[in-house]
Amino acid sequence: MTKKIRTAIIGYGNIGKYVIDTILHTPDFEVAGIVRRNVQEIPTELKEYTVTDSISNLSDVDVAILCLPSRLLETAANECLSLGINTVDSFDIHSDILVLRKSLDGVAKEHSAVSVVSAGWDPGSDSIVRALMQAMAPSGVTYTNFGPGMSMGHSVAVKAIKGVKDALSITIPTGTGIHRRMVYIELKKGYQLDNVTKAIQNDSYFINDETHVFQVNDISELKDMGHGVEMERKGASGSTQNQLFSFGMKVNNPALTAQMLVNAARASLLQQPGAYTLIEIPLVDFLPGKKDEWIQKLV
Amino acid sequence: MTKKIRTAIIGYGNIGKYVIDTILHTPDFEVAGIVRRNVQEIPTELKEYTVTDSISNLSDVDVAILCLPSRLLETAANECLSLGINTVDSFDIHSDILVLRKSLDGVAKEHSAVSVVSAGWDPGSDSIVRALMQAMAPSGVTYTNFGPGMSMGHSVAVKAIKGVKDALSITIPTGTGIHRRMVYIELKKGYQLDNVTKAIQNDSYFINDETHVFQVNDISELKDMGHGVEMERKGASGSTQNQLFSFGMKVNNPALTAQMLVNAARASLLQQPGAYTLIEIPLVDFLPGKKDEWIQKLV
Repeated sequence: MTKKIRTAIIGYGNIGKYVIDTILHTPDFEVAGIVRRNVQEIPTELKEYTVTDSISNLSDVDVAILCLPSRLLETAANECLSLGINTVDSFDIHSDILVLRKSLDGVAKEHSAVSVVSAGWDPGSDSIVRALMQAMAPSGVTYTNFGPGMSMGHSVAVKAIKGVKDALSITIPTGTGIHRRMVYIELKKGYQLDNVTKAIQNDSYFINDETHVFQVNDISELKDMGHGVEMERKGASGSTQNQLFSFGMKVNNPALTAQMLVNAARASLLQQPGAYTLIEIPLVDFLPGKKDEWIQKLV
Repeated sequence: MTKKIRTAIIGYGNIGKYVIDTILHTPDFEVAGIVRRNVQEIPTELKEYTVTDSISNLSDVDVAILCLPSRLLETAANECLSLGINTVDSFDIHSDILVLRKSLDGVAKEHSAVSVVSAGWDPGSDSIVRALMQAMAPSGVTYTNFGPGMSMGHSVAVKAIKGVKDALSITIPTGTGIHRRMVYIELKKGYQLDNVTKAIQNDSYFINDETHVFQVNDISELKDMGHGVEMERKGASGSTQNQLFSFGMKVNNPALTAQMLVNAARASLLQQPGAYTLIEIPLVDFLPGKKDEWIQKLV
């Protein structure tokens, strides 16, 4: 029997839960353990796993999937890479990806490990589609339209703002890559909606978009993890104008993120030491089993 | 100034013409020369180039783009690779890709060259989309629906059949990846439509599809190089069912083929010796210029 890919899951929020689900449905993977701050109260569904507060307590880990808010990822990645453990994350602050990649590239190379950054669906699988569309028609414009759907990255960012008890941010596409953000919050006692609204609107996740903030009594009544994307490019191949491309999906958001993270974890084992975004990795490396069989089936 | 990628174009049919057009619109490329059988009558638009009947007459060639019918590609590829020149082709007989790749892989490695096989749009860019969809939802079904549009590979196959003076094959999608082939032919004198029809229907390009053959007086009246694809996958990410993906395009067929061939020629210079299909090459390698700028822009 081939050795399975032993995977640590770091963080046990939405994404962490879906990553475990994905691993259970992925024959070449197994859970090495879960790393989280709270090791006192262990949820029933984790009873069969090693749950610890430090990656260094787990043995034989091939790769760690980091299921933490974007702003906590770098520290966790550095810790794993320093132990020679590959990392995969779904860092989603587009403007900072290049900086994170460069920083982790150095650490990864120093410890002969591989780090795959921004390996969710956007950034992630959508980045692959954008790169392909760019190649197919080098001049032209690509629009990425998100939603309607709940943005996990944006919701987490709102939850981190002072005065917010719970939050949910829904992305509404208004066409040509422009979006409206509908933010629903439960307010902590003693905080003013006006001030919190301003803090949200000035956060780097929201500052460039039309953002509306609403106070509600119970966030859980609004939750639906469905999401969608419509990408389109119109451009020229050589001198030939009006080449039209589109890509669309309607998905469970954390399920696709988790699936892409697991795919990237697999691919991490096939790359040379260093840090990579998904457009730097051959597509076939994301798939399990034999390369020749995929060439036969997919090419 | 950075050295341009010196490219030989082998074959001067539809694809060859569009490859030259693409190179003229691609700042990092230049034409090293055109290789064709007929060097006596040189078309006006080629007067400024070296036109020769052998690749060995051209100097400083980085990569040869093979613009020949699929069945003539392997011999030409072997000749170039043996001279240490990278090759790129758009070989389109899906069932034989793995065999061709394996054969050229040996020759390429022996001469420290790179061969990119099946680098058009299907096989080619569509293969990349199929691999991505497979990764995003590992269980499920992908359908690739072509057309309506003229299939160059199928038209060339018909033209090679005895008794056919000129031909055009149009692909009609009938859903769930099933296609009808509408074949229009001009018949040579002394041949029977019935016999030629049977030969077409038994050709490996047509034997699995519903194929109708019609005799016409003038093929040129039917020509339109627009083509299209609609790909769809419904599948599961982890245990989450009903993840929906689609990819569509409406394009000038030879223009996109040529653009992908030029992209693959660029990528060939970045790979280790050997033969590759497009799903074995990182997406960013198909793009010109600096990797970091593409990560910033596309990821």
